[in-house]
Amino acid sequence: MEEAKKKKCVVRFEPSGLKIEVPVGTVLLGAANKAGIYLSSICGGDGYCGKCKIVIDQGQFQSRPTTLLTPSEMRENVVLACQTKVLSDMTVTVPRFHTLETSQILMDSDAQRISKLAGEVEAGVFKFDPLVQKLYLEMSPPTVQDHTADHERLYLAIRERADAPVMQTGFRILQKLSSMLQSCGYKVTVTIGRRGETTEVIEVEAGNHSDRNFAVAVDIGTTTVVAHLVDLTKATTIDTEATYNSQINFGDDYIRRIMYAEENNAFDEMQNRIVGDVNNLIVTLATRQKIDLQDITTVICAGNTAMVHFLLNLDARRIRREPYVASANFIPPIRAAKAGIKINERGLLYCLPSVAAYVGGDIVAGVLTTRIYTKKGISLFADIGTNGEVVLGNRDWLVCASSSAGPAFEGSGVKHGMRAGAGAIEKLIILGDGSIEFKTIGGTRPVGICGSGLLDTLAELFRVGVIDRTGRFATNDKYQVTEGEDGLQFHLVQGGNGHQEIVITQPDINNLVRSKAGVFAAIRVLMESTQIKTKDLEGVYLAGGFGNFLNVAHAVTIGMLPDVPVEKIHFVGNTSIAGAKTVLLSRKALKAAEKIAQSMTYFDLMSHPKYMDEFVRANFLPHTDLSLFPSVKLATEKI
Amino acid sequence: MEEAKKKKCVVRFEPSGLKIEVPVGTVLLGAANKAGIYLSSICGGDGYCGKCKIVIDQGQFQSRPTTLLTPSEMRENVVLACQTKVLSDMTVTVPRFHTLETSQILMDSDAQRISKLAGEVEAGVFKFDPLVQKLYLEMSPPTVQDHTADHERLYLAIRERADAPVMQTGFRILQKLSSMLQSCGYKVTVTIGRRGETTEVIEVEAGNHSDRNFAVAVDIGTTTVVAHLVDLTKATTIDTEATYNSQINFGDDYIRRIMYAEENNAFDEMQNRIVGDVNNLIVTLATRQKIDLQDITTVICAGNTAMVHFLLNLDARRIRREPYVASANFIPPIRAAKAGIKINERGLLYCLPSVAAYVGGDIVAGVLTTRIYTKKGISLFADIGTNGEVVLGNRDWLVCASSSAGPAFEGSGVKHGMRAGAGAIEKLIILGDGSIEFKTIGGTRPVGICGSGLLDTLAELFRVGVIDRTGRFATNDKYQVTEGEDGLQFHLVQGGNGHQEIVITQPDINNLVRSKAGVFAAIRVLMESTQIKTKDLEGVYLAGGFGNFLNVAHAVTIGMLPDVPVEKIHFVGNTSIAGAKTVLLSRKALKAAEKIAQSMTYFDLMSHPKYMDEFVRANFLPHTDLSLFPSVKLATEKI
Repeated sequence: MEEAKKKKCVVRFEPSGLKIEVPVGTVLLGAANKAGIYLSSICGGDGYCGKCKIVIDQGQFQSRPTTLLTPSEMRENVVLACQTKVLSDMTVTVPRFHTLETSQILMDSDAQRISKLAGEVEAGVFKFDPLVQKLYLEMSPPTVQDHTADHERLYLAIRERADAPVMQTGFRILQKLSSMLQSCGYKVTVTIGRRGETTEVIEVEAGNHSDRNFAVAVDIGTTTVVAHLVDLTKATTIDTEATYNSQINFGDDYIRRIMYAEENNAFDEMQNRIVGDVNNLIVTLATRQKIDLQDITTVICAGNTAMVHFLLNLDARRIRREPYVASANFIPPIRAAKAGIKINERGLLYCLPSVAAYVGGDIVAGVLTTRIYTKKGISLFADIGTNGEVVLGNRDWLVCASSSAGPAFEGSGVKHGMRAGAGAIEKLIILGDGSIEFKTIGGTRPVGICGSGLLDTLAELFRVGVIDRTGRFATNDKYQVTEGEDGLQFHLVQGGNGHQEIVITQPDINNLVRSKAGVFAAIRVLMESTQIKTKDLEGVYLAGGFGNFLNVAHAVTIGMLPDVPVEKIHFVGNTSIAGAKTVLLSRKALKAAEKIAQSMTYFDLMSHPKYMDEFVRANFLPHTDLSLFPSVKLATEKI
Repeated sequence: MEEAKKKKCVVRFEPSGLKIEVPVGTVLLGAANKAGIYLSSICGGDGYCGKCKIVIDQGQFQSRPTTLLTPSEMRENVVLACQTKVLSDMTVTVPRFHTLETSQILMDSDAQRISKLAGEVEAGVFKFDPLVQKLYLEMSPPTVQDHTADHERLYLAIRERADAPVMQTGFRILQKLSSMLQSCGYKVTVTIGRRGETTEVIEVEAGNHSDRNFAVAVDIGTTTVVAHLVDLTKATTIDTEATYNSQINFGDDYIRRIMYAEENNAFDEMQNRIVGDVNNLIVTLATRQKIDLQDITTVICAGNTAMVHFLLNLDARRIRREPYVASANFIPPIRAAKAGIKINERGLLYCLPSVAAYVGGDIVAGVLTTRIYTKKGISLFADIGTNGEVVLGNRDWLVCASSSAGPAFEGSGVKHGMRAGAGAIEKLIILGDGSIEFKTIGGTRPVGICGSGLLDTLAELFRVGVIDRTGRFATNDKYQVTEGEDGLQFHLVQGGNGHQEIVITQPDINNLVRSKAGVFAAIRVLMESTQIKTKDLEGVYLAGGFGNFLNVAHAVTIGMLPDVPVEKIHFVGNTSIAGAKTVLLSRKALKAAEKIAQSMTYFDLMSHPKYMDEFVRANFLPHTDLSLFPSVKLATEKI
């Protein structure tokens, strides 16, 4: 056995043609991983999500038995990569549905719009006062009459231009300061960064480089990582880029990833992955815009608490188990290089503060961006991702909770679900004759359904009576409901003729209903606890990566959001990145974010006595209590 | 020639027997240096101070011609080590006067007294509130009901015990915090350090170690480095130690050392020397007191501006040339390890702030210790070392200046001058019959004269009329004035019978008079500028390393200090280390020191129109203007 282990095999992945050499006995999912190939995987390799299907074209392998493959798949040599060991040189084919084309990821719904508008800062809500600034200072050199020391001279010059009562200089800067100042006649560009109440002299350079100061704002999602390149001198977004979070091989949700990391001692690897993703985005943006990495002085991240823990390799273990606590909610600014992020070696990394283990800086960013913390009236904010975080309140109080909604609206746990990428059905209507009209992202052949498409599908199936209030398929000849391997299913796209069959199955619908029920139950718990009625809601803000054509009315139809008039519902897209940029550009916005994070009251739903009841009650379309949804017209009254 | 260079010679130094192998052509001073042997040297190897005399016993050498050796010295193979090259294996003898016995250095006059009294802090002047503290915290672990994150939980617990509105945690601490807290049931010792307005979490350790928190206060003198080991939990001085500043080979004063470093690109070496000295002192103290270096969390240094620049390797070049500025007067606290100081790797290094290039943190410490900045009446403070720094003022204003007094009172530039070590004459009286009584440090055979002895000698010679008001020897049969190699000289100790001859020569007296004239001229400039008369002075504080038996009245007799009643003159010993310890033990004292440094007005004497006049007028005993010294009785009225 020891001898056998030493033998190496070459695995070739089609259609990319990528090859990797691995020891005999290596698990195929690991080999793919090592080759840099993305395979969908929700369970993180435990063998029960059935997502990591791959076709063996040639070679010897050993697979554990599984019930997750159909007889036809087995005949075609489809295996679960996580349950299959490599025994010889082999060739495998990665099915199309795994393919991620990062160039087609939706970055945020308003990426183009905000490319010229730096959010709240440009709008004058917050004063433009970026966290890291470059100042060009022309100082008088010291004379016998004016013998102020160089270090104090620099401070005086900075204080003429910036509000910096408490200052700090690193030892290395201090050591080089005098010769630097003398070499350039006391004309320098100084980079100052805000670290809490302290202003740090980050860098001193000869001459005027104050027009070259850039930052990258990053939304670290569990699935997608979005980066915006910002010109800090002009408060403009120059370019945007996104990629998939390459931790995805270790599980589609962060609880799974924490488990994986814990069991495999892989927290370092988890950090390397996300840091690598962020670095790749930065390099891509900088290269495209011909910007020297040295001129990028700031990175600001918004993400859920777990993602921030992974990024910084903080202990994330108790996020997934009692007592469900973070290592830190407020992360002090650190040298970006210390976390492995490759910008200016003295540049700073900021993370938006979290509220709790399940309510992160991305949600704080959402509250900041929607400004619900400043309004007199009551607002509701819901961010639908793998989890569904919900915030309720106004300028006087804010409560929040996180439902374990599950990633159904991100396409996971849904047979033909997929992320909002090329070929995803993002909009769907069932016409009166039972035919279907849809629109795919990029206008290409449909390959799956993304969040907004799934919301449409669920709402439309319910509207026309294909599914009943329990979400079960009603027998209805008008529509293409057939018996499939997982029970009844509805055909969105017929297979054959080069088209991939796309169906929505009973388990898919159950998952989607559970997701929306989780979100709505969270909303109900917050509203009941604060005695807020639906009519009290002055604004409902829905954030998330659904796709660009979200029909917000459908969110009410299926009972995900309270039944408020549609004009009160605002789809706000990626508020995580928008909030991160606002903070980046204004110290006052950072202070506001910190105040939001500090003042939000967190409701732990897992231990809340009413959450389970509310969840069960919400597991209907739109709800068991129809009086909560007076505007929803039912195709059928029967349960 | 290239061939010859490759050949190595062994130089043996007697009486120590130390050997060193060096290439042919090596300068003997450098060889001694490399062997770790101290040779007096003021000029730093330029060949004109004549201090580095050494005897060649055997071997070939090449010496440059010099006028600094007497014919008898030349006959005895005495050479200047800095002007002599090694051409073969050789044996040399290091004369006794070079010998420094570090175990006998005077640390400060009140080292014993303050060993139980932590200065102003113990006296209740400042609140005990050390710059670095260890707190033992027993926190409740988080629960589902109390889900405060670990980092915020720690902050809350710290804030219950310490005033710390603005806190900061390093990335490494943040990363290990959670697993640390869990491993020990949330019972930890946290080390907090004050960095300006910010309180840093320096270290977190499992269990209770709060009783092991030590600091070292260091007075970095140009000649002597003194260290006190302080128990930060009890505010007591545990032990003291001192050594010579091993930069001394590069010149006896710091101007010379800066020149040497500049010409030889030796700033790194200069730093290594002083850092090595500080480390040696720390290790000696820790070993003797059985203290783990990890439990030393703080080092605080007071020194002149140049010494602090050397310690931190800041650019010191313009301290010695126009416009005579420091790189930094206010040094932020830094990680001690960054400067190479070997205490706890996260421990902090503080430096007392300077006022200007020639008025350093040691003088600020003096003002703090004497408390002249709090008094209503006017005080004068003078610290006599290689330079003579002078401060005048009260609680409303402070002015200061530094005279280039020269190191005469430290024993340099005086034929038989020496530092206050074993065998130094530290007290001397000329009796009525012309005979001399003296006392040596350690009660051993006299080998030279230290500061207090030189002050006595000058005052006594003047009192009895051996020298006149110009400092010139008067012919007087009663006293042993003879013609020596340098002109007239006075015998303190006759040579022979195992005794070393000790004389004071006309050039010695000229040097001493110049030194005192420098100090007094500085005092005059400050007093004239502020229109303060001698009668306005309520207290005169004299600091320095003179020796333990300083006769302060003699400082008036020779015209070094203004003619105030003797009871107003206080010899305060080493106020540099006393002030450093006070700051170490109280944040308020640090703030006071910073305020002192900020508010003192510096007078640059070199560019002051009156200084030269005052200096010339003070080049008499006690002064040209006798009305300034009504109490001084003259042995003779003639000039």
